[in-house]
Amino acid sequence: MTVTELADAVVEGDRRALARAITLMESTRGDHRRQAEALLDQLLPHAGNSVRLGVTGTPGVGKSTFINRFGSLLLNLGHTLAVLAVDPSSQSTGGSILGDKTRMADLAGDDRVYVRPSPSGGVTGGIAVATRDAITVCEAAGFDTIVVETVGVGQSETAVASITDVFLLLVAPGGGDDLQGIKRGVMELADVVAVNKSDGDLIDLAQRTAADYRSALHLVRPKHPDAPTPVVTCSSLTEDGLPELWATVEDLHHRLASSGRLTDLRSRQARAQLEAEISLLLTRWAADHPEFARAKAEVLDDVAKQRLSVSSAARRLLATIVKF
Amino acid sequence: MTVTELADAVVEGDRRALARAITLMESTRGDHRRQAEALLDQLLPHAGNSVRLGVTGTPGVGKSTFINRFGSLLLNLGHTLAVLAVDPSSQSTGGSILGDKTRMADLAGDDRVYVRPSPSGGVTGGIAVATRDAITVCEAAGFDTIVVETVGVGQSETAVASITDVFLLLVAPGGGDDLQGIKRGVMELADVVAVNKSDGDLIDLAQRTAADYRSALHLVRPKHPDAPTPVVTCSSLTEDGLPELWATVEDLHHRLASSGRLTDLRSRQARAQLEAEISLLLTRWAADHPEFARAKAEVLDDVAKQRLSVSSAARRLLATIVKF
Repeated sequence: MTVTELADAVVEGDRRALARAITLMESTRGDHRRQAEALLDQLLPHAGNSVRLGVTGTPGVGKSTFINRFGSLLLNLGHTLAVLAVDPSSQSTGGSILGDKTRMADLAGDDRVYVRPSPSGGVTGGIAVATRDAITVCEAAGFDTIVVETVGVGQSETAVASITDVFLLLVAPGGGDDLQGIKRGVMELADVVAVNKSDGDLIDLAQRTAADYRSALHLVRPKHPDAPTPVVTCSSLTEDGLPELWATVEDLHHRLASSGRLTDLRSRQARAQLEAEISLLLTRWAADHPEFARAKAEVLDDVAKQRLSVSSAARRLLATIVKF
Repeated sequence: MTVTELADAVVEGDRRALARAITLMESTRGDHRRQAEALLDQLLPHAGNSVRLGVTGTPGVGKSTFINRFGSLLLNLGHTLAVLAVDPSSQSTGGSILGDKTRMADLAGDDRVYVRPSPSGGVTGGIAVATRDAITVCEAAGFDTIVVETVGVGQSETAVASITDVFLLLVAPGGGDDLQGIKRGVMELADVVAVNKSDGDLIDLAQRTAADYRSALHLVRPKHPDAPTPVVTCSSLTEDGLPELWATVEDLHHRLASSGRLTDLRSRQARAQLEAEISLLLTRWAADHPEFARAKAEVLDDVAKQRLSVSSAARRLLATIVKF
């Protein structure tokens, strides 16, 4: 199958072609990279028309169940949905539970939905790139809602926020009583915060937790200048609050789109991704030079112990491969 | 004066030599860079023995006055103090008010203090590098406390946190009632939060604000695993709370040092600075190639409008200068 044939099949809605295309995006082989780029360039004109929703949550918040019920709601509302998991630790847990179709019983087998487990490979940067490209493929295939989810390992939340339009943080009732609390920086990355498990005995606690998050967010500059970050409660069990949560997401997205800020956001994201990719490719190119790698191994300990200045060390390393 | 003579003079406490050395660190001229690196390598063995305190604050919180009074307190306690300002916008405001000696009347003219306005030049990365090197010079000159302060433009808080041991966030009473609130991500960067202006009519409000910040910080993972981020109140006017604030900073620093975590922190910072500098130098080297710059100008608009994939664009750009 040529790249053009694959592109056409994706756009026609062929599910097997979609899967093949995303697998191609994830491959690091040189020849695959060139095919992937050619494929992307053919699919890009068909892409862009979706709500890109990033989702993360504290451990134990019930993310899989949430996405399952939330996804069903979206299907009932007439949407088509792709769910992409970003989980750099999936290899160690024997396959990502995020993509586990048994937890997503409602969604499995429904062809208005495409669920994709996390790509293998351990580098967050690499995963953000592969996922960004998978979003393009899914949009070209006609999905109007793309959910990108992460358990939150390393810098994955920042990576997911950088490739989505709206970023949803799911938390459990009780807030900071958790062993851990949410990771630093993540609360302020969110466009929406939802306190899950707001059912039965936990309803009052969930509402107090929502109030705590509203107070906390009140102290910081809002992500969007015209309104504070919305904090809602919901339950994957009873489905209370789920329609309102989706309405909040849609409303945010609509305001972004109609004000031109969505275009600006995606444009900024694309330019930042370009800078990051140039930087990443240059760094890898440098690291592939044996003299550079050797010099780096020699200086690293001295730099770490502040016996050699960073400036001297950096220049010494660069001198092994480029002329200044 | 040779580099060695300059280094010796700095270590002997010669104030003019100190100023010359820092000016050399800030210069971007090629020959100056090499002298700066040679100087740093001679000064590094004399460096490392200070409390490196980063300070930022919301606009109008009274940072200059605070640093003035806090600095005086430190001198009275027998410390020697260097105050370095990081303010990328100093050029547009006609000279940084942070370094304005008239606001720091108590400190000006006291030779146990060295106050240095922000370096000129607009790049946060460049300023973080120059300031990091200025810290080395000041430590070699014998200052036991280095305060690095920023108004908080661009990514300057992150830059300052990356070159200091303890990061202090100053806020005004009333928290989110400010027009703006604190920048996203900054609250969670802080090792200590101090609510300033806790005097007269504002004492009750300041204490409520401190309670608000404690609640907010309770929701997120603490920066240091053994304790929540301390939130205190203080007044630059009455000096209430200033000794306690310094005791809090010293205690944090002491615990870091005695547990080995200070060594780990500075080691991690140095390694991260090395990676960042390699990346920066490589990116500048690439940008200096006319074909690269031209190709980038050509693709940037298409990438921003998502008509060309980031992957294709990045590879096309890199192909102008390296072989893959």
